[in-house]
Amino acid sequence: MSFTLDRERFISAMKIQADIGGTANGGLHRLALSDEDKEIRDWFCEEMEAAGLSVRVDEFGNIFGRREGKRSIEPVLVGSHLDSQPYGGIYDGALGTVAALEFIRELNDRGIETERPIEIVNWTNEEGSRFQPTLQGSGVWAGVLDLAEQYATTDEEGVSVEAELERIGYKGEVPAEPHEQYDSYLELHVEQGPYLEENGMDVGVVTGIVGLTWGAISFHGEANHSGATPMHHRNDAMVGAADVITQVRRTPNSLGDRTVGTVGFIDAKPNSINIVPEEVTFTYGFRDPDASILEQAKTEVLREAENAAEREGLTWEHEDRAEADPVFFPDRCVDAVEGAASELGYDSMRIFSGGVHDATHAHKVCDSGMVFAVSEGGKSHTEEEFTSWDDCYSAATTLATAVLTLAKDEA
Amino acid sequence: MSFTLDRERFISAMKIQADIGGTANGGLHRLALSDEDKEIRDWFCEEMEAAGLSVRVDEFGNIFGRREGKRSIEPVLVGSHLDSQPYGGIYDGALGTVAALEFIRELNDRGIETERPIEIVNWTNEEGSRFQPTLQGSGVWAGVLDLAEQYATTDEEGVSVEAELERIGYKGEVPAEPHEQYDSYLELHVEQGPYLEENGMDVGVVTGIVGLTWGAISFHGEANHSGATPMHHRNDAMVGAADVITQVRRTPNSLGDRTVGTVGFIDAKPNSINIVPEEVTFTYGFRDPDASILEQAKTEVLREAENAAEREGLTWEHEDRAEADPVFFPDRCVDAVEGAASELGYDSMRIFSGGVHDATHAHKVCDSGMVFAVSEGGKSHTEEEFTSWDDCYSAATTLATAVLTLAKDEA
Repeated sequence: MSFTLDRERFISAMKIQADIGGTANGGLHRLALSDEDKEIRDWFCEEMEAAGLSVRVDEFGNIFGRREGKRSIEPVLVGSHLDSQPYGGIYDGALGTVAALEFIRELNDRGIETERPIEIVNWTNEEGSRFQPTLQGSGVWAGVLDLAEQYATTDEEGVSVEAELERIGYKGEVPAEPHEQYDSYLELHVEQGPYLEENGMDVGVVTGIVGLTWGAISFHGEANHSGATPMHHRNDAMVGAADVITQVRRTPNSLGDRTVGTVGFIDAKPNSINIVPEEVTFTYGFRDPDASILEQAKTEVLREAENAAEREGLTWEHEDRAEADPVFFPDRCVDAVEGAASELGYDSMRIFSGGVHDATHAHKVCDSGMVFAVSEGGKSHTEEEFTSWDDCYSAATTLATAVLTLAKDEA
Repeated sequence: MSFTLDRERFISAMKIQADIGGTANGGLHRLALSDEDKEIRDWFCEEMEAAGLSVRVDEFGNIFGRREGKRSIEPVLVGSHLDSQPYGGIYDGALGTVAALEFIRELNDRGIETERPIEIVNWTNEEGSRFQPTLQGSGVWAGVLDLAEQYATTDEEGVSVEAELERIGYKGEVPAEPHEQYDSYLELHVEQGPYLEENGMDVGVVTGIVGLTWGAISFHGEANHSGATPMHHRNDAMVGAADVITQVRRTPNSLGDRTVGTVGFIDAKPNSINIVPEEVTFTYGFRDPDASILEQAKTEVLREAENAAEREGLTWEHEDRAEADPVFFPDRCVDAVEGAASELGYDSMRIFSGGVHDATHAHKVCDSGMVFAVSEGGKSHTEEEFTSWDDCYSAATTLATAVLTLAKDEA
């Protein structure tokens, strides 16, 4: 049973949202709880009301729109997020949210009544760039993050999430928690990686989300004159850092074909051309679908840090920054997405998500699944992010068809 | 002919100067042209006048005190600098300036008239930490640096050297240039390295100053999602930087026993734990007594940068930051210092300076030489810098004896 959407109206809605916070280079700058975020939220609520949905905003700003089913049973939840990275792309998050809205409109146009109620959702602050952590709204909703703690998180100017929710009028009355049992959660998102395009696919069937292990390492050596200090007298923290950065680049090769490792952040002290670095702190991060590989990658990096410290005469310390187990979506959700792509005649492949998504947290509340749209060149979190309208539409119809399958209540 | 000083008065003067800008940890924070620098300059001028010297301040704040000789011939210049690194040590620079002052007092006490006039000097902004470049005052005086350009250099708050010279009252009337032909320049400085202590020496006979080649390298890759981007799709600027940092550490081993290489500064963009680094800029610096080794070291680093860029799919650029040829002091100055140490019964060794000094520029004006005092553990540019009073005194008397030799006009 395939289900198609009004392609023109869908693309038109994508363009409307892309104008709210749109940048001169065709990207999107719509930081969580900014004026632009308020504007897109207002638009989203108006469109939901126009589509006859009953709209509610929870106390953390997550926005839900409900369409009742034939029966009063567990609803299917579908959506994503409307906030963006600083100077990010127009597809990340918005594509999944707009597709959910368009799905509802099409159901209305065709006068279709589903067995299960359907709710569509826009999660607060998925990106985690203005306020940390990422996945903040879905995390609070799923009970993974504490409401009071998250209210108190602040941006670089010291403005809190709670104050901004109040300012833009999106601190709702409803508790930020599942108000009932959900049947399932489905999310469409851009892949943010190159695999679908490389394999010539129309759409991706997401089977899970990689786990991650993040940490920070600091080496402590001795600041000294860069001219008068012989090499064998040096305790150069920068040299230790370089050794571990190289190890982080090398480790994935020996562990798994989906393992990735990154040193994204580095800070040196005193950071002067003329002084041997006394202290260098840097982060590392590994992701993999297999928790045991993450453990092994971390072990190898800490061993290299110990070896580098020994060689260079440094002391060092390690701080855990984040750990997340891999998520495996249940067969019924994966099958619903795969079946939908097949019925629509799309070439699809099963794929593990390299990035985290709101589905990571929703999965703790109910069975979850995801659809991936092609990301041209795998570019993400940049204004150059691109997905063709064909690929947007393929993914959106796959989502719609999969939700309809789940909403049938065949159990 | 050995010449000794009043040990108590010399140590007492060292302690007086160490109190002006002294830190709680026994170090010194006396940045160029700061209030503390004004205070030590006032003290230095008062002491010189009390010692009967004719004091003049040039338009760049260099302070000279002249003691006439028996004959009106080329004078011997002797001195160093009174400014310090941020939270540096009490010996660096000050030791050589105080030793010069104490030498004059001792000549006075003994009623000695030298053949040549003797001038003592305090150079403006040797350290180059508040205002760049280093060796600013001696550089202007020697005609290596342009007066107007150096006046216009600013500190982090945007305050210019010229404004600060005026504010503290040390923008003098005399042109910042050699007002006559000088016979020679001698400078006492702490070694800032470990060689004298390692070899059990009392004092160092400096034969020259290493040359240096400094540059900055920037790698440009692509910012991308640290989870969704497979390793083989990455153009990670941090990885390229790590390769070159390792090369800078390794290169000296293959070139010379006095070659040193340092990566002291690094800056990554966007510098986020979760994004593959798009751009990493870092500096490198090599020093060696042999200019051909410097050339070779630079060649090897640029070759490694090219290889790293090729491996990782990066573009890169290189910027020269500084080049200085090695300085070789003439025999007559080296011999004067070595002979002085010998006459005083000190164990001395010939040593090449790993750091630059005001003698680098003075050498362009007249024959120059240097005396090194022992630096315990080679520590420098830190509050932990230490030279025992015995070692200070050995170096100061070696300087005094050597200056007397040069001032004899045996030619």
